[in-house]
Amino acid sequence: MRRIALSHGAGGREMGKLLREFILTTFKNSRAEVPLQALDDSAVMDGVVFTTDSHTVQPVFFPNGDIGKLAVAGTVNDIAVMGATPVAMSVAMVMEEGFPMEHFQRILQSMAACAAEAQTEIITGDTKVVERGSLRDIVVTTAAIGRKSPHLARNFEIAERKQQWLLDSSLEPGDALLINGAIADHGIAIISKREGYGFEGDVQSDVAPLNGLMEELLKEGGVVAAKDATRGGIANTLNEMAEKSGVGMLIYEEEVPIHEATLAACEMLGLDPLTIGNEGKVICGVAAEKADGVLKAMRRHPYGKEAAIIGKVTEGNHVVMETSVGGKRIVDTPVGDPIPRIC
Amino acid sequence: MRRIALSHGAGGREMGKLLREFILTTFKNSRAEVPLQALDDSAVMDGVVFTTDSHTVQPVFFPNGDIGKLAVAGTVNDIAVMGATPVAMSVAMVMEEGFPMEHFQRILQSMAACAAEAQTEIITGDTKVVERGSLRDIVVTTAAIGRKSPHLARNFEIAERKQQWLLDSSLEPGDALLINGAIADHGIAIISKREGYGFEGDVQSDVAPLNGLMEELLKEGGVVAAKDATRGGIANTLNEMAEKSGVGMLIYEEEVPIHEATLAACEMLGLDPLTIGNEGKVICGVAAEKADGVLKAMRRHPYGKEAAIIGKVTEGNHVVMETSVGGKRIVDTPVGDPIPRIC
Repeated sequence: MRRIALSHGAGGREMGKLLREFILTTFKNSRAEVPLQALDDSAVMDGVVFTTDSHTVQPVFFPNGDIGKLAVAGTVNDIAVMGATPVAMSVAMVMEEGFPMEHFQRILQSMAACAAEAQTEIITGDTKVVERGSLRDIVVTTAAIGRKSPHLARNFEIAERKQQWLLDSSLEPGDALLINGAIADHGIAIISKREGYGFEGDVQSDVAPLNGLMEELLKEGGVVAAKDATRGGIANTLNEMAEKSGVGMLIYEEEVPIHEATLAACEMLGLDPLTIGNEGKVICGVAAEKADGVLKAMRRHPYGKEAAIIGKVTEGNHVVMETSVGGKRIVDTPVGDPIPRIC
Repeated sequence: MRRIALSHGAGGREMGKLLREFILTTFKNSRAEVPLQALDDSAVMDGVVFTTDSHTVQPVFFPNGDIGKLAVAGTVNDIAVMGATPVAMSVAMVMEEGFPMEHFQRILQSMAACAAEAQTEIITGDTKVVERGSLRDIVVTTAAIGRKSPHLARNFEIAERKQQWLLDSSLEPGDALLINGAIADHGIAIISKREGYGFEGDVQSDVAPLNGLMEELLKEGGVVAAKDATRGGIANTLNEMAEKSGVGMLIYEEEVPIHEATLAACEMLGLDPLTIGNEGKVICGVAAEKADGVLKAMRRHPYGKEAAIIGKVTEGNHVVMETSVGGKRIVDTPVGDPIPRIC
């Protein structure tokens, strides 16, 4: 009998297979403007941008965040990277009997604070409790609805593109690839706290709601695609965008921002930082002539101070990295996630 | 240290306290038309009806349904009982590593079939897998968005009420109370299958999407309030509506539909059927002069064949039941749910 494996939920190649084999063949959308089949960050139907995520992060509290902040920011980001503004959110929680009330309260407060920062509201929810031993701690599932950003149409005019949304599939050869800051902090902060490696003084999660940043980029204009780089890291995100757009990419290793402590931790643990998850990073495809303008707009925002142009879209169908020593290597889609339960 | 108990997720009095003490004080809505504070079946903001539910039912497969059908129908019903039409749904699943792929596939097919019956579509989702031993089977969280039913305005005109939605708080003394069929089947089917009591040949879950039925009632006209009777049974639903509307109720025990096998099972297990959960039953408040018309409309629908007028709204603040032997007793809000994990 075939069974579900951890890698089926890890955002990499195995999860892609599961989605294509089972989910897309069972759920067929006919009326959605951006359907499930696009496997984009959100779907769009009847003018409403709609997305959901379940969160099972372990530990529930980690450096610079917790499952509540993660759940709100993660779902807000899936709305924002479509070129939309979050309107409202739902929160459904399943807790283990015996879960400390004080932890529950901290998680709620953290959700409320993150929603306030993102200028959205939690307007509906559900609470379930299961008997001890049948769930570890808590599962938090958020959904969000959003509306097209008022700046999106003008953004596409500036990019000289005819498109309605920031889709993973809208990259064209020549587009610049930008990121708003350093990679791999979230995954390393989680694994360090969970396993007691002791990196967590130096490495903090980057979890943050990015809708404010995205709005500034759209005002600047020229963005053609955006995707937040969560499970599977930027290796997964770049490959997903390249595959859906039918293009290749050239990434300059030297330009990819990474904090020294995070790089050291990755080296010590034998992990490729490109495959480590982030929770406050977005990859943007930008029309080449607008790349510098969008980069400056990123750097003006608190969540984009360390932004960089990390590469460009090419003809072809591989994500290729020019290494710091001058060689080239293919960056592939990770099979699973090297660190489980990061979100 | 205070800890979360099973009753905090059971839909009864303890859950109400948790919601009021922690959730409503932390999440404050300012912009919603129907806010979280209403604790209604869905919220409404920016013209969108929005709701979510996490499902943890044990066993995952039960007589006449499974967690997939339950998740889709439950969320569709929360949209429908507001007077809205479901537009689209999200599904987020968290599975235990080792969960049989075949079960996963059956659950997906069941969701797709129920969504098709409800004429809605699953357009976005998420899949997570957690390590063995940290979650039992699967948690399925659905969210749905909906739009005001095209028949709602005319329905309120016929009821001679000035209101925008079918709220728990819109009952007035004199309104008739209707239910679309027999109570307690779902909870008894679940507990029987789980514990191996052997009632499940005769007692099947009533899980069903009720949006088609609700649409017919709105076309008939005169409905003023509606609520699906899930956790805590109709005892919980009636008390919640009475409390929010600031009214009392008189329920006629003889008129409350219940199947013989279900009643026998309740008696054998020492359970009050009024407190046992349903997944395909709605309590409707109807303007008195339209009660017969709405009853007939219910009975014409496949999910309303055994519909009945079970009581009326009164002045006062208690739900009182006139028993079959002519006495009267107060029907109180259950403290928790006598059967855990029914949804």
